Amino acid sequence: MNNIKLVCSKGHERTTIQVGEAVFGRDFVVIAGPCSVESEEQMLAIAHAVKAAGAHLLRGGVFKPRTSPYGFQGLGLKGLKILVRAREATGLPIVSEVLDTRDVSWMSEYVDVFQIGARNIQNFSLLKEVGKARKPVLLKRGMYSTFAEWLNCAEYILNEGNPDVILCERGIRTFETYTRNTLDLSAVPAIKELTHLPVIVDPAHGTGRASLIQPMSLAAVASGADGLTVEVHNDPKAALSDGDQALTPPEFAAIIRKVLSLRTFMESLN
Amino acid sequence: MNNIKLVCSKGHERTTIQVGEAVFGRDFVVIAGPCSVESEEQMLAIAHAVKAAGAHLLRGGVFKPRTSPYGFQGLGLKGLKILVRAREATGLPIVSEVLDTRDVSWMSEYVDVFQIGARNIQNFSLLKEVGKARKPVLLKRGMYSTFAEWLNCAEYILNEGNPDVILCERGIRTFETYTRNTLDLSAVPAIKELTHLPVIVDPAHGTGRASLIQPMSLAAVASGADGLTVEVHNDPKAALSDGDQALTPPEFAAIIRKVLSLRTFMESLN
Amino acid sequence: MNNIKLVCSKGHERTTIQVGEAVFGRDFVVIAGPCSVESEEQMLAIAHAVKAAGAHLLRGGVFKPRTSPYGFQGLGLKGLKILVRAREATGLPIVSEVLDTRDVSWMSEYVDVFQIGARNIQNFSLLKEVGKARKPVLLKRGMYSTFAEWLNCAEYILNEGNPDVILCERGIRTFETYTRNTLDLSAVPAIKELTHLPVIVDPAHGTGRASLIQPMSLAAVASGADGLTVEVHNDPKAALSDGDQALTPPEFAAIIRKVLSLRTFMESLN
Amino acid sequence: MNNIKLVCSKGHERTTIQVGEAVFGRDFVVIAGPCSVESEEQMLAIAHAVKAAGAHLLRGGVFKPRTSPYGFQGLGLKGLKILVRAREATGLPIVSEVLDTRDVSWMSEYVDVFQIGARNIQNFSLLKEVGKARKPVLLKRGMYSTFAEWLNCAEYILNEGNPDVILCERGIRTFETYTRNTLDLSAVPAIKELTHLPVIVDPAHGTGRASLIQPMSLAAVASGADGLTVEVHNDPKAALSDGDQALTPPEFAAIIRKVLSLRTFMESLN
Repeated sequence: MNNIKLVCSKGHERTTIQVGEAVFGRDFVVIAGPCSVESEEQMLAIAHAVKAAGAHLLRGGVFKPRTSPYGFQGLGLKGLKILVRAREATGLPIVSEVLDTRDVSWMSEYVDVFQIGARNIQNFSLLKEVGKARKPVLLKRGMYSTFAEWLNCAEYILNEGNPDVILCERGIRTFETYTRNTLDLSAVPAIKELTHLPVIVDPAHGTGRASLIQPMSLAAVASGADGLTVEVHNDPKAALSDGDQALTPPEFAAIIRKVLSLRTFMESLN
Repeated sequence: MNNIKLVCSKGHERTTIQVGEAVFGRDFVVIAGPCSVESEEQMLAIAHAVKAAGAHLLRGGVFKPRTSPYGFQGLGLKGLKILVRAREATGLPIVSEVLDTRDVSWMSEYVDVFQIGARNIQNFSLLKEVGKARKPVLLKRGMYSTFAEWLNCAEYILNEGNPDVILCERGIRTFETYTRNTLDLSAVPAIKELTHLPVIVDPAHGTGRASLIQPMSLAAVASGADGLTVEVHNDPKAALSDGDQALTPPEFAAIIRKVLSLRTFMESLN
Repeated sequence: MNNIKLVCSKGHERTTIQVGEAVFGRDFVVIAGPCSVESEEQMLAIAHAVKAAGAHLLRGGVFKPRTSPYGFQGLGLKGLKILVRAREATGLPIVSEVLDTRDVSWMSEYVDVFQIGARNIQNFSLLKEVGKARKPVLLKRGMYSTFAEWLNCAEYILNEGNPDVILCERGIRTFETYTRNTLDLSAVPAIKELTHLPVIVDPAHGTGRASLIQPMSLAAVASGADGLTVEVHNDPKAALSDGDQALTPPEFAAIIRKVLSLRTFMESLN
Repeated sequence: MNNIKLVCSKGHERTTIQVGEAVFGRDFVVIAGPCSVESEEQMLAIAHAVKAAGAHLLRGGVFKPRTSPYGFQGLGLKGLKILVRAREATGLPIVSEVLDTRDVSWMSEYVDVFQIGARNIQNFSLLKEVGKARKPVLLKRGMYSTFAEWLNCAEYILNEGNPDVILCERGIRTFETYTRNTLDLSAVPAIKELTHLPVIVDPAHGTGRASLIQPMSLAAVASGADGLTVEVHNDPKAALSDGDQALTPPEFAAIIRKVLSLRTFMESLN
């Protein structure tokens, strides 16, 4: 890594990115919502619940990158309109994943933060396109990305003129099968050594097991993360995607209470 | 894998795909050319050399998925026009990688086979777009793709109406550092157990070392592969990308002579 | 994992193991000391320092499993005698790694806890031999061990009649090169779901970088770990092994103060 | 790897090791037999069958490194005596795995070649002990060993005065689940670039699927391997271990005929 000279490398004061009332890189920011937007009723129920529990941003997928072409592919524009109504109802800014260069321009009319998923981490055309957009980008680590490669992906976005990149550790692929991925929390302090960009953690994709979300969320706070993104569903068993790793609203509320309490403690520790 | 019911699964006679005079799934097909198209002079020299050595298709990248945004990104349309002139001069059909959904339609005027690279293996928008094109697709395995995931990616293309998918094993990411990737030749017979699609091997990306290309090309033939794709450059040390793993034309000719001789022997063995 | 019926599986109240004044499985236990025992002077200095900082057990290797046969192989019996003098001087029980079945019997005269290192995780003869000993065993996860395999290794020890096994997550081998291994903190809550044995964390081997030890130690506490093992050296640059990941005594003291403070906070959180 | 100066490194003429009538490093040597020695009747039947099919050495495990302590652990001395009777009946030298330093001395009265299994690749005490023995050692690659580490393990043996080490590629652990391990055939030419020791291939452990043994055996020959080790059982479904990857004697005979025919062809190719 020594010979990498990137704009995103350290030697710059830490980047802060304001979205709604939350500031990535200063506050501990919680993003929550369902894996997929399924209906207006579902979305509004979840949005009100996660807002009440302390979430700062609302997430929900409308274009889903599914392993199989026969899996649920998302509601598309209809889903975005539902997200917008949930934002109007709660005031929570919205984060949603973009999969296609052709969608960046028009989707930026709806979303507050673009998410780039792990499977598109080296879709360089898409990185360049969101680099031209005027919206922050949540850039998930690829399941096979080294830190150096991940930072180069961020650099593709910065190099197009968009400085507002939030990195997100979401687990890497290893030989372990009990967890869906291996959540690499050492990425949090390591990435902070290497870049001035904020870094958050996705404990649900990182482990694939609802029972591991609380301990890994707390560990993420203690490791120095700038926030979390968590999947919450009002009826996980009926979810159209990723139900195994979604929290119910009461579970989410209990975890966030502990998470925010721990964050306050950690600030007193330094 | 037992519960996957895919169109690309076995239980269908083996798919054959004719490109120029070669038939994937019947002949042993050799694709050769430089990593990147750099100039007309370079391309014509290489095209004539690989044709003389027995190659059936000509490859050359014009949009390059580079780890760093500051790496050479390819010549784009100018490069495609050079490839077309090389095709006119040699009669070799051309294979080139597409990175962006917006490029599929117009690029299909130039190329004979679309290549989808390892980094875009789960760029599902791109897979759907080449699924709508009327050209064969060379689908490289992702560096983190299981066989099941890889076949689902092929299924995205077939499901849009394009049956002409050629799979390409190109190495997976492991802990080993001596080789750039670990070339998984067991993929050849395993994939043939699981699908009727043809499968070829890329020994250059699979190992990242020119010295390993000959033994791994021969091993690929013996494992039952339907072909090879190899990087050939008239001046590897001056190559704008991947010079460490490119063969010179005489090296390529020597290897292909052995490869085709071995293929003939293998056919006599069964 | 569902069909594993192991003695070490859950459905048994949590195992507690007293060593000196500390109780694994109840207290947060800190093990500290140099990678290798180098001299009596070094060992006494470190032992007094880590005791003053709050460590409960003293570690030091006398048989070193080195990648190269030309690396420092440890002081053997002479080193054990030095450890014993350090125990006499400080009252701290000692932990040391055993490599050979022939050494288990006589080493048990000196050590309080046997360590089985990652490289011997599936040295089943050695596991059986420490299973016959009357001392607790600190069993490190192999760098390629799944949770299921690791628990079966513990089972080899329990099956010989020794119930006192302490598991230790120390990082697994992945493709990442910035860290020496990838510390898998999800192992802590996952292993606690699967077994009643205590589990501690080794942040130094898990990352290979001194700068990452503090954040990963704090994250280990927050994930629910029962303790830590940390390498401390009075002169890391002169260490005969693993100097890059050793803490100085003042660094160790600062980290342990935060770690124990965080542990107290975590107990109040539940 | 550049700064490794090992006795086993290149710059020495290729090592040849005679065992019975076969010479590793000169001939293509085939080792065959069951995973475990189960009974005299089984062993004699298999020994006669593999000899008739062209095998040069007989293999059979009597100490089995099983993941679970409740798996079949092998017949021990009784099994060695059965192997000796099979050697007397067929003239085939015998290869068997040693697990414990305490067994090396007395086992050397029975076996012709010691096998060190993947799980003991970094059991340095055991490597030193077989380094003191006067028998060749078949050293399997660990499932997480880099080439550099593997050669250092060979060096432990050479450094004790035993020059007769045969390396064996047997697959590494990756994320793929269709195969039990990922057989890394690039290890064959890579290891030959780095050392003068012979290298053979184990296609059964490398893939874990009987259907893949033939294509991977042929690929191993084409990659330049010095031999194969294959599991053969007269009744795979009744085998006490690894039945899924064992060949029947007729399957073995058919494969070996092709393998030896290909080897002859390969020699004509150079």
